[in-house]
Formats: sequence, C-alpha cells, structure tokens
Amino acid sequence: MVKIRAIPRREFDRVEKSHLNESQKLRLIADMCRYNALNAVKKAGSGHLGTSFSVMDILVYLYFSKMNIRRLGLEHPDRDIYLPSKGHDVPAQYAVLSALGFIPPEKLFKLRKLGGLDGHPDVRVQGIEMNSGSLGMGVSKAKGFAWAKSRGGRGGRVYVLTGDGELQEGQIYEALQTAVHQRLNNIQVIIDHNMVQSDKPVDKIIDLGDLKKKLESFGFYVDECDGHDFVKIKAALERCDAVSDKPKILIANTVKGKGVSFMEHPQALKEGCGTYRWHAGAPDDESFVKASEEIQSRLNSMFASAKLSPLRIELVEDFLKKPSGVTSERIVEAYGKALLDAGKRRKDLVVLDADLACDCQIRQFELEFPDRFIENGIAEQDVVSMAGGLALSGFLPVVNSFSTFLAARANEQIYANATEKTKIIYVCHLAGLIPAGPGRSHQGVRDISLFQALPNMLIFEPCNSAEAKMVLDYCVDVAQESCMIRLVISPSPRLIELSSDYVFSFGRGAVLRDGRDAVIFSYGPVMLHEALTASELLEKEDVSLKVVNMPWLNRIDLDWFTGVVDVCSHIFSLDNHMVSGGLGDFLLDSANKAGLLRDKCFVKLGLEDYPECGMPQEVLRHHGLDGASLASKIKEILPSKC
Amino acid sequence: MVKIRAIPRREFDRVEKSHLNESQKLRLIADMCRYNALNAVKKAGSGHLGTSFSVMDILVYLYFSKMNIRRLGLEHPDRDIYLPSKGHDVPAQYAVLSALGFIPPEKLFKLRKLGGLDGHPDVRVQGIEMNSGSLGMGVSKAKGFAWAKSRGGRGGRVYVLTGDGELQEGQIYEALQTAVHQRLNNIQVIIDHNMVQSDKPVDKIIDLGDLKKKLESFGFYVDECDGHDFVKIKAALERCDAVSDKPKILIANTVKGKGVSFMEHPQALKEGCGTYRWHAGAPDDESFVKASEEIQSRLNSMFASAKLSPLRIELVEDFLKKPSGVTSERIVEAYGKALLDAGKRRKDLVVLDADLACDCQIRQFELEFPDRFIENGIAEQDVVSMAGGLALSGFLPVVNSFSTFLAARANEQIYANATEKTKIIYVCHLAGLIPAGPGRSHQGVRDISLFQALPNMLIFEPCNSAEAKMVLDYCVDVAQESCMIRLVISPSPRLIELSSDYVFSFGRGAVLRDGRDAVIFSYGPVMLHEALTASELLEKEDVSLKVVNMPWLNRIDLDWFTGVVDVCSHIFSLDNHMVSGGLGDFLLDSANKAGLLRDKCFVKLGLEDYPECGMPQEVLRHHGLDGASLASKIKEILPSKC
Repeated sequence: MVKIRAIPRREFDRVEKSHLNESQKLRLIADMCRYNALNAVKKAGSGHLGTSFSVMDILVYLYFSKMNIRRLGLEHPDRDIYLPSKGHDVPAQYAVLSALGFIPPEKLFKLRKLGGLDGHPDVRVQGIEMNSGSLGMGVSKAKGFAWAKSRGGRGGRVYVLTGDGELQEGQIYEALQTAVHQRLNNIQVIIDHNMVQSDKPVDKIIDLGDLKKKLESFGFYVDECDGHDFVKIKAALERCDAVSDKPKILIANTVKGKGVSFMEHPQALKEGCGTYRWHAGAPDDESFVKASEEIQSRLNSMFASAKLSPLRIELVEDFLKKPSGVTSERIVEAYGKALLDAGKRRKDLVVLDADLACDCQIRQFELEFPDRFIENGIAEQDVVSMAGGLALSGFLPVVNSFSTFLAARANEQIYANATEKTKIIYVCHLAGLIPAGPGRSHQGVRDISLFQALPNMLIFEPCNSAEAKMVLDYCVDVAQESCMIRLVISPSPRLIELSSDYVFSFGRGAVLRDGRDAVIFSYGPVMLHEALTASELLEKEDVSLKVVNMPWLNRIDLDWFTGVVDVCSHIFSLDNHMVSGGLGDFLLDSANKAGLLRDKCFVKLGLEDYPECGMPQEVLRHHGLDGASLASKIKEILPSKC
Repeated sequence: MVKIRAIPRREFDRVEKSHLNESQKLRLIADMCRYNALNAVKKAGSGHLGTSFSVMDILVYLYFSKMNIRRLGLEHPDRDIYLPSKGHDVPAQYAVLSALGFIPPEKLFKLRKLGGLDGHPDVRVQGIEMNSGSLGMGVSKAKGFAWAKSRGGRGGRVYVLTGDGELQEGQIYEALQTAVHQRLNNIQVIIDHNMVQSDKPVDKIIDLGDLKKKLESFGFYVDECDGHDFVKIKAALERCDAVSDKPKILIANTVKGKGVSFMEHPQALKEGCGTYRWHAGAPDDESFVKASEEIQSRLNSMFASAKLSPLRIELVEDFLKKPSGVTSERIVEAYGKALLDAGKRRKDLVVLDADLACDCQIRQFELEFPDRFIENGIAEQDVVSMAGGLALSGFLPVVNSFSTFLAARANEQIYANATEKTKIIYVCHLAGLIPAGPGRSHQGVRDISLFQALPNMLIFEPCNSAEAKMVLDYCVDVAQESCMIRLVISPSPRLIELSSDYVFSFGRGAVLRDGRDAVIFSYGPVMLHEALTASELLEKEDVSLKVVNMPWLNRIDLDWFTGVVDVCSHIFSLDNHMVSGGLGDFLLDSANKAGLLRDKCFVKLGLEDYPECGMPQEVLRHHGLDGASLASKIKEILPSKC
C-alpha cells in the first residue's frame, strides 16, 4: 500500500503569485509537476518517467512563460502550438496542463484509464494538438501547422519537441529538408537531448555524431543550452526568436530522470550496469516512495527558504496494486528463448533490433551472439531493407520491433523484400488490443491486414509459450516463404493448454474446448481467454460453444476446418485486430471455399473502431470483446438463421 | 515506322581489344550502350532515358574497369555488388550487362515485356542484385550486403547508386547514420548528381543545400568528381578506396540526358520552359531518330579517328508502334480538372505533391493556385504528416502520389492522421495492375488492403471521367470521414458508359450490362473493360453475365446489393488488386451479412501472385484476368453448386 498524492492547482497559483523571481517560480513549479507526474504514473501502473523528468523544465518554461496559450486559450488561431513529437513524455505535459487548469485535476489520476488520459498524446485531450507515440512525425506535423499560420496570416509559433533517439527516424530529415525549402520559419524545434534512449545511451545504439553540425547542414538555425536552467532556456529561445530567415532548432541538454537522484543519467545507467531502468513502467512501491520523498523534501526546503508557507499536498488515494489476475506466462519470453535455441543451431540466423531489445526479449540473443545481433536504432525502414540485403546474401534475418512500427512504417520495404522471394522473419511485438495503456499508437491491430496481400508471407500468432517455440521453429526450419509472427507482450491472462499430442502442422489449429452449437476460432492468449470465458459462461446457459486455437492466420487446411466446424450451426471468428483484414476475413473466405456457408452462419467479431486506452478488462468490455459480452452476443445470434 | 537497331556484343569486344587507352575505350563503350538503351526504350514504349544517360559513364566504368564481377562471375561470394537504388535508370544497366554478355542480346529488346526485362530492377534478371523502383532503399540494402561481407569474411565492395532527388527520402539518412555507426566501411555510395528530378530541377522541388557538408555530417567520407570523365571517376574512386575507416560517398556531377544534345540538362530544361521532357517515356519517332543519329554519328567519327574499322550496327526490327486500341480518355485528367474546380469553390483545399505533379495531373492546380499547392519532394512520410498538421489547422489537404509509395511507405503516418479524426483526401495514382511496364515496384495492387482497417476511411475507384469528378466532389463536399481515391493512370481501354440518370450515392454502384445467370462486381476502367468483354463473350455462349460498376470499395448499401444480385446464382468480384484485401473480401463479407450465401455462390477473382511486368494484354492474360480468361473461368464455375 502506498499513498498517491497530488499538489493541487491552488498551490501552483500561490507560487505564481509569490514574490519569487521567474526562475525561482519555474523551478518550484517544475518540481511540483514532477511530483504530480510521478504520482499519476504510479497510479496508472505504467508510463515514461525518465523522459518526463528530463523534459519537464522545458515544458514548464514554454507553458508558463513563453507560449501565448494561457492568454489566448486553446482555440485561438493565433495561439502558439506545442507538438509532442516524442509523445511518451506526455505525463509531463499532462502535469503541466493540469497545473494550468486545462486538464481537470481528477483526470490526471485517470492516466491510462478508459475515459481518462491517453497513454500517448491524443487530440481528444484538452490541450493536446497532435496524436503521437510513434516517433519522428512531429516536425512534419509542425510543417502543416506552420504553413497554416504563415499562409493563413495567423500569429503564433509552432514548437515541436523531439527526443534525441528519435533523430534516428528518417522522417525527421525529410521534414528538416522540406521545412527549410518551404521557408516555414515559424517552426521552433526543441530537442530533449537526454542522451539515453529506451534503455541504453544513444551513442551506444546509433550515434548521432556531431548533432549541431548535422542539423545545421540541413539549413536550420541551431542553438544549444542547458535544458534545466530557466535563464539559459529563455536566452536560447530568444536567440532563436531573433532569427527570422530560417526555422530553428534548440538542442536542450538534459538529464534523463532529472529531479530524482537515483533515476538520473549517468548515475542510474551505472547502477543498471549499462541499462537505464526508468524509461518505461511505474516504479515499484519502494522506489516510488523514495522518489516522492526526495522531490517533496526538496520542495519543502525550497518553500521554506523562499519564506513561503509550507506546501500543501493532498491525498488522492491509498493505493494497492491490485493483483492482476494474470498468469506469470509471457509468450515473448518463450520466444526469446526459442530464438536463442534457433541461433545455436542455425549459424545463418541474424537478429535485428530497432531499439526495443529488452521489450522484445532479444537481449539474451545479443549477449550470446553479439556477432549475429544488429542493433539498428529507431529506423524501421532501414532495418527492414538491411534485412533484405542480408537475406539476398544468404542469411536468415529475424527483424524485431513493435507491431505498429514494423508493419506500418516499413510496409513498402517489406513488400520490396518479399518480391525478391528471399526468406525473412518479421516479428511484430506488442500485437493486439492489450496492453491498452499505451494507447492507439502502440496497439497493433492492423498488422495482419498490412501483411495479408503478400502472397509469399505466412502469418502466425501463438497461444502459449510452447506454441511460440513451435511457430518460431517452423518459421526458421520448415517454412519456404517469409513469415510474420505477431506476439502479445503482456503476461497471458490464462494459460492456454494444448494437449500433449498437439502437433503444429500446416493450416491446422487445435480444439481447446469442445462444443456442438457453435464454434469460435481465435488466436493468441488474450482473445482465446475471452473465448474460453464466453464458452464457460454459455455452458451455464446450455449453449455449447467450441473454442478453437488457430495460430495460422492466412493458411488453412480446408478438410481440417470442415471437420472442426462439424455440426455447429454457427461459426464465429474472434480477432485481436480490426475486424477488417484479420483472421475473420480469411476464415470467411475459407468457409465460402469449403462450401460451409450453405447451411451455417458465419459471424466475424473483432475491433470495429480504433482501440481504446485503458485497463485490459475495461477496454475489452468497451469493445464488446470480453468473455461476458461475447457470451451475450453469441447467445443473441445463435437462434437466428442467416 | 522506325528502325530499331542494336550494336552487337562482338563490337564491344572489338573496342575492348583495340589499341585505345582505357578512357578512349570506355568512352566508346558508354556511347554504344547509350545507343542500345535508347533503342531498347523506344521498342519498349517507355523507360527513363534522361537518367540512364546521366549514369551511363559511371556504370560503364564500374562494370568494365572497376568491379571484379567479370573475373569472378555473378555468384561468387567475393564479388563486388552493384545496387541500383534509384532503379529507373535500369535501361543503362541492362545495356551494360548485355554488352558484357550477362544478359542475352535478344532479352534487351524484350524490355518491359512479359518474360523479358522488368521495367525496374528485379533479382530474377541475371546481374541484378536487388529489387528497386521505390526510392531510398539502396543504402539500407547495401548495409545488409556489406554486413554479410565484413562479418562473413567475404571480399568485394558494395557499390550503391542513388539519384539526387532520391536524397529527399528519409530512409537515406537512417541508412547513412546506421552505416557509419555499424562501421560498414565497405560501402561505396555513388550519387548520380544530375540536378533534375522527375521533371524539374532538384533545387526547385526540395533543395538539398550544401550536399557535401550534409553527407559529411553523417560521418561518411565524401568526394566529388565529374561523372562523365573516366579519368576523374577513376581517381575519385581510388581516393575513396584509400579511406578504410568509414563508408564512402562519391558525388558524381552529371548531366541529365548526357549524350543526346537536345536531351541534355540545362538546355533541355530551357526548351521545356522549366520542365524536363525526357525523364520518362519513349521518345516520339522523330526525336528517336534524331537521337539515334546523333549518337551513331558521334560513334562513327570516334571510330574513324581511332582508326578502327567502321562500327557495325544490326537491325533488330522495323518498328511501328501498334495502335494500342485504347480510348483517349484518361481518368486522371478528369481528376485534375475536378480538383481545379474544387479548388475554386473551396478556399480551404490544399493540394500536396511528392514530385509527381505532372503524372498526377495536379500541375494545373499548381499554376492556378500556387499559394495552395505544396510541393514536398520525394518524401512521402513527411508529406502525409504535414497534411495531418494542415487538417488539424482547419484545411482540407489532398495528398497525391503513386499508390505504392503513398499507401505503403506512409502507412503509419496515415494511421496517425486517421486517429485524429480530421478529414484528409489521399489520392493513390497509378493504382492497379496496368500499366504493367514499370513492374511491381510501381503496380499498386495492395492499396485497398493497406487502407481497409482504418474505420473512418472511405475508399473509392471511379470507372470513368464523369465518375472521377463525382467521387472527388463527394470526398470534398459530402464525406465526413477521410477518403482514399485510387486512380488508374493509363488511358481507359474502353469508355465505361454510365446512364445519364446515374446518381452517385452512398454504397451504391451501377449496372453496366444486364444479366441473369451471374453477376460480376468490379471497378475502374481496366477491370470493368475485361468484365464487359467477358460478358460479351459469354453472351455468345448463352451465359448471361451482369456487370456492375462498384466505385465504393468499402461501403455498401445492402438493400441495393441484394437487389442487384437478384436472381443470379453466382456472384463474382473482380479486383484490380491482390485478391486478398480488396473489394472481393468486402463484398463477400457483405453477401454474408445480407444472407445471400445460403443459395448463391461467391467467387473472388483478382491477382493471386505478384503482378507481372509487360504489355497490358499479355499481363492480364498471364494472371487470367483478361476478358477471355474470365469468360472461360466463369463458364467453368457456373454449373457448380457451392
């Protein structure tokens, strides 16, 4: 049990109205925002603190001292625009927006909850001007705003904040080049140069070289400052303001984790033996308390020495992390182990990463086979085409990234590789609706559709750890074609049991629970759990629902399919994906080919709208995809003829 | 009638064995290759001469003097690798590979024909090491080859040739950054710096600034030379060879169209009033003869002054461009006009281009509304995100590029925009199988699948000029959601006639030809023509096939659908797209929802494999999608029950 606390808005007002000078005020406000962001992330259960803390002073300076938003409001055409390009620092932005009254205080503590604040920036939240979470888009978006301002005769500047790891994305350089050519001089880029990306230093992942020289070579005015010194931030932005004939970049040198000693780079990196622990995820209770106390005690002494009456912090709630009711199985871990095994037997296997080695569980491979591991940074297009070159040279590349980034961002590169008829394995991590906390930039619910029209591409999702190994082994050792494997990143909500005699074979799945009224096909642990739950609930109402695990998402053995469907009058598909372009479309097509639709109904279930942000069960329920909703939907449909 | 001629391989041998010095030999060989490339492109009916000519001297130097391929052959692991990143200069590469005997002489004149040489590089052609045609991937691919060489202990260098306009693609900068970090020092990039992209100078589209400084800032060794002077090319590459601690770039300053006076930049640009005419497409007969004669006469005098016996050129064939049997209707022209009209009535409409203004027929808009036209160069990710910023600022952006580049390359950016719930119109040009000459990098046959899982996206393809206007007007004035319009770029194979009372309305199409045995749904002029042809052929065999134009590719009025299907026992869908993820999947789903599959058969027709390169009819036939193949397929299926 820990206490979640908040510094209320009136305390910010009190600081603002105090006798302190601007820098002193901003220093207090920034730490007060750090305190609120820390508490919000702890309650949310996840979020990015390291980068929220490094960017906080810049944000506080912009919102409290620099931009005209407080004066003009959020709708005025002449308002300054702030664009969060890196996006995962949004807890900082929320804390600032809440301190300013743009976000109501109760909302701050609904971070990553349904109907609360999205895990990554979304325009439906007051004060957020663009959606982000996928890196590299901010400067391009800024160009649109800047064009609208300059050509539409509107006032205000366009501020866009990027990370430094983010500068590995090629889109950044497209945008720099075009912004200069198009003379969008009202753009002010600020780089939160905290030197650490996901969990390693930028110069260990992909070094940026002489950053200032590089950015200047694109024609920008480039300045630099200490990103934690308000006087220097102010002066640097004023130097930028004085330049009117080109767009501007300010490199703000910051410290990742700034404000909590044990989260600060480089100390934190040293303590983590080279990896930075505080990039993502909520801190454990002990660290949370330590961090809270550190900020609070610094605030108290600053208040005291400024001769302000003591800071009043309010209790939000006594917080006990609920047992999540999930298993300890993580399919992605099984994948990591299977990959290691595959690496041992196949010397031609090369693993490629796009700065998500830890999340994708391929760090073990990196440590074991450093000479067959390629860290390519946040550059998905490049990593995919590089894999193409490796495959043409006789290697077997296994490319890893999150589903949304890999399937969508590098889609044309994947196509180009596929037309070369080499074999490449693409692993789309963080696939599906859950976890729903990070929000729609991270929920991979279109990846099947993005791979489906490649004729020589097999698409899979395993339901448990054993099947993860079977799928990977099949892809490595048996498949002739390229493969896409989608993997859930969260712990499995239940262990999906496969019978001991289950053999992974072409186009076939496995019956998990028998039934005779209807049959539901799904895949992966998340939706199979819901399907099984639905089946269990329906059993109590005398409806017998067969549940089938179908790890093959675009190949099927029609005889097996026909046999499995058997006497069931209704066939359901349940996609952990948009209902369009997923397994459902493929099975409907297969049922049509197998002549099953003459006397059986086929109903596709899956996401009908963009995935919501929130806790797993509330989000599943919102989309009507939790076991109970599925059960009632199926019960309603069953009597019907189609 | 013109004569297609070729310089046979023995003439190249004769030059090579002559007493001339290296430069003199290469100069002759390069012009001989230019001659062959010109003739091959003329016979093909399309191809990129300007860039083939600018790059020719570099290619000849690499293949004849520099690389070890002739010695080691095309399979040797230690061979030098040549990667054609820009790709559309492949007629030059084919001419050189043919001069060296790697490509048989008869194949050179099957350029862009079925079973011949692909319109853009494809690894199934001897001597081609990577597929390209979509820009910006070459350096990344080179990284894969270079890694395989350096880590696999293989010899040889990796040469990759890029354009200069191509340096607007962000993937290039991803690759430069990672190549340096990964110490892939065996990469030698050569930039064919001919200063002109599609049809305008690079510095008018998106200026590259101080290119050398920019590239150096990424950590490469950068050198520069005259790309038409063999002595200088040689010396520059030797300077690069001497650098072993970083990868290398050679900026080769070249002249677009080099070797044919009236095609040479800058003269050609001046004659074209600012646009360059010789980028793509075969020259007309008169220009072809003039160009041939110019090269031939220069060769003759060089042979004479070198005291070589006269050059023997062989006749390949008397060539008369066959009337293509197509109409003069170009739907894309109608789109261009409709866009201009829309621009007149909607002051918030902004048109964005990615260096294809001429092909996309939006130049007229540019001339009329220069202040609402944004030229963004070859930077698809950036242009899409910029459109996102414009939409968030209250403008209505219309983004234009070729289907493959826009739908695939910028897919994640499109998703991010779509989640913001603004309205943007994406126009995917050069959609579908035809023209098949450019090859699979340019055939947009996955775009529907790439847009389909976006819930707030309407997808259309119009069948004729009138409908093109209706679709655009609907998107501009009526639609609440974002829209994707796919457009055929070629002249329509027949005029698709819509009745005078046709009203474009939500989810409805139009019956083009009545029938009672079966009904086929298709869209766009290419496949509707084939469907109509099939219907006409079947009529002779007493099979009555109804043909329906369905411009709505992901929305349908189920009542209308049911009514149109009527008594037909069989429903066919015909996609100008991969059979997976196109209209067929959507209609099958709709038929299922409408309960039509209880007593009707549904058969999806479309591309089952990657699109072939060649002439329209041979390619349609190859895929079984020409009218005759369709008719016999349908006739075969019809008696069956399903």
